[in-house]
Amino acid sequence: MNQDNPVADLVISGTLLEGRPVDIFVVGDRIQRIVPVAGETAATAAARRQVDGRRTAVLPGLANAHTHSAMVIMRSLADDMPLMPWLSEKIWPFEAHLTEDDVYWAARLACLDMIRSGTTFFNDMYWFVHGTARAARDSGLRCLLAPAMIDMEDPARASAARVEHEALVERMDDYGPRVRFAVAPHAVYTVSAGLLAWSRDFAERHGLAIHMHLSETEIEVAQCVARTGLRPVAYLDQLGLLGPRFLAAHAVHLEDPEIAVLAERGVHALHNPVSNLKLASGGPMRYQALRAAGVNVLVGTDGCASNNNLDLFEELKFAALLAKHASGDPTVLPADEAIDLVTRHAARAFDLDIGRVAPGALADLILVDLDHPGLFPGHHLAADLVYSALGNAVRTTICGGCVLMEDRRVADEDAIRREVRGRLNRLLVAAGLA
Amino acid sequence: MNQDNPVADLVISGTLLEGRPVDIFVVGDRIQRIVPVAGETAATAAARRQVDGRRTAVLPGLANAHTHSAMVIMRSLADDMPLMPWLSEKIWPFEAHLTEDDVYWAARLACLDMIRSGTTFFNDMYWFVHGTARAARDSGLRCLLAPAMIDMEDPARASAARVEHEALVERMDDYGPRVRFAVAPHAVYTVSAGLLAWSRDFAERHGLAIHMHLSETEIEVAQCVARTGLRPVAYLDQLGLLGPRFLAAHAVHLEDPEIAVLAERGVHALHNPVSNLKLASGGPMRYQALRAAGVNVLVGTDGCASNNNLDLFEELKFAALLAKHASGDPTVLPADEAIDLVTRHAARAFDLDIGRVAPGALADLILVDLDHPGLFPGHHLAADLVYSALGNAVRTTICGGCVLMEDRRVADEDAIRREVRGRLNRLLVAAGLA
Repeated sequence: MNQDNPVADLVISGTLLEGRPVDIFVVGDRIQRIVPVAGETAATAAARRQVDGRRTAVLPGLANAHTHSAMVIMRSLADDMPLMPWLSEKIWPFEAHLTEDDVYWAARLACLDMIRSGTTFFNDMYWFVHGTARAARDSGLRCLLAPAMIDMEDPARASAARVEHEALVERMDDYGPRVRFAVAPHAVYTVSAGLLAWSRDFAERHGLAIHMHLSETEIEVAQCVARTGLRPVAYLDQLGLLGPRFLAAHAVHLEDPEIAVLAERGVHALHNPVSNLKLASGGPMRYQALRAAGVNVLVGTDGCASNNNLDLFEELKFAALLAKHASGDPTVLPADEAIDLVTRHAARAFDLDIGRVAPGALADLILVDLDHPGLFPGHHLAADLVYSALGNAVRTTICGGCVLMEDRRVADEDAIRREVRGRLNRLLVAAGLA
Repeated sequence: MNQDNPVADLVISGTLLEGRPVDIFVVGDRIQRIVPVAGETAATAAARRQVDGRRTAVLPGLANAHTHSAMVIMRSLADDMPLMPWLSEKIWPFEAHLTEDDVYWAARLACLDMIRSGTTFFNDMYWFVHGTARAARDSGLRCLLAPAMIDMEDPARASAARVEHEALVERMDDYGPRVRFAVAPHAVYTVSAGLLAWSRDFAERHGLAIHMHLSETEIEVAQCVARTGLRPVAYLDQLGLLGPRFLAAHAVHLEDPEIAVLAERGVHALHNPVSNLKLASGGPMRYQALRAAGVNVLVGTDGCASNNNLDLFEELKFAALLAKHASGDPTVLPADEAIDLVTRHAARAFDLDIGRVAPGALADLILVDLDHPGLFPGHHLAADLVYSALGNAVRTTICGGCVLMEDRRVADEDAIRREVRGRLNRLLVAAGLA
């Protein structure tokens, strides 16, 4: 060991980086160095922990740009339904009985699914944000979390939301360096102009991102026009919310001038193809036009109640195929570009040094199993991951230098499911859904 | 053992059938009886072989309505390309060097993937049909196979095709009861009117199904109109090909009167949503209109070069979501109906007693693992399988009473991949693609 190369906290030995075998040394939460190795022999270098990377390829961990992770507890509770009965008969009655501890355990379950499919970062908006924050901390995932902010023009709810957020920034560091907070006004139809303006100032004052549903459905757009005389993009722009810290979830129903505004302001578009298709939200999102205008497009799974899983590789297959279908051009959104959407594009949107496997970057990494049947015969790794194998091919998941899954084993998996099962029985009875 | 209940060849003990625990007794290739059991205790009844079905649910094995199975060897060889360069630069040069033995091993690999994702029947059209037939026989899957028939108006090729098919019917029983043959004129743009008419008569004479690509792309329709004055459906109807034994793969570009003709003739529509999206074939297929007209719709994966896997559960997710998107109605093609498309609808199209778990039916069955993470918490099994867990949740696959996969282990898996790997290296060099 020389001075430049201290004993590493972790070494991943013999994994393939862009086709070449390497050893990756991690110190603290970052990649310290990457050393080519001859053949696939395991490293002999000293490290506190060693992960055998032979017969794997290393990729950056994936970033889920938009989800409501705790909703995994409602997976398959209600599918194939129209939006309003879905919400009023199933989702809302169930959610009315959730506690912060329920959200904690449900989010633990979601983190399990994310870890198992190679996701190391998620951007979340939901109730009981401290439940999700504790779950992310205990699961070891990196995330950006925000309480769902809704006032429905009710001053009392607006006031409560302001109080909740003022308290939240006081606890910004409570959950360690991987858990950060944002502001999430839910949508133009659920948040008053006054609370939107407050959100803008609050985000500005504390340097926070704004995470918001934008132009998901035609009804949302029509109602906004009827109420304000403006389409949602123009309305939010007039209120001064749009900028490089604005994360626009869905962004489906956009006209050319709106796309130009989003590009001009540096807004990021969070594409959720499965949810848009499943809820028949229309569109589809105009991927080609957004990219041509220079908008940074990311991909999210949305919540499990409208997906019903958290597998970003599967989401990329939908994103790629939908973009080809919508454009009539099979060359649009090829597999390598799809991987970029959940790695490099996310790094830019969330201002994190993730999405690349390089010295100095955060050690948020996944090892995919080159012996997975879906990767055989293996002409092109990115295409195999996106079109064939999906998240199942992930063997090992590492976040901030911590090994969260090794050889498909995650800590506490059975205990988490057992706890969720118990809570679920109580919730279903309480909601009259048992 | 009483007289009515001979010693079974196989018993599946303690699996859930529509939510109730049962023991399923198989004699020969059929289900003999289904006995409710108290709780999930394993059966003690005598049987030559016992499969522990506890913590599983039983479903009929799935039927892949349209594929070119050996093309799995080309998985990820060429993606995100326009159709003509894809064919002329990649697929055709590669296929030019294939031998029957190559097709055998490639089809063995495809059968592996099908067994692993719960498919017990496939309808195939490809070169070297005896290679695929041997592979299906050795893998234990049920199938309907046809040589790809193409003459391009060349009398010599038409003559060769006729000779090949006359020889084929002589060997109808060579591969055992699970392997049957059909006639597969490739498409209206690759098969002459004369050979189409011959196919009609030949199929009629031998009682064979006709498996054909139909109205997959707009170009196909436009060229047919330019050449014959008729759209493909009218053209084939004039030639007398359409009837209850006609299996129309893709069936994307259809006008209302064409759908009425397909319904009137009893034609079956084989939907391939992933391939249609990936190749940007337009449409999408008019699921609602076809079903409203009474057309029997099935689902296939197409070949792996345009998918890139053979997972029918994943294909159903695409089918269901695309139908919702196309109709603007999230209630269209719910999960239980999706399962019907690859079970009961296939039984009707292929005239096989598959697609149901009942005494007397063929014992083509799958056991899904109720402990699979994608099925948790498990509010609705069909929705979990179609929207969340996909083919990965299949634990055990049985075809004709033979256990092809138990606890995710399939015989010869490593040997098949090793053999394919060796052949692939030779083929890539020969095709100038290495």
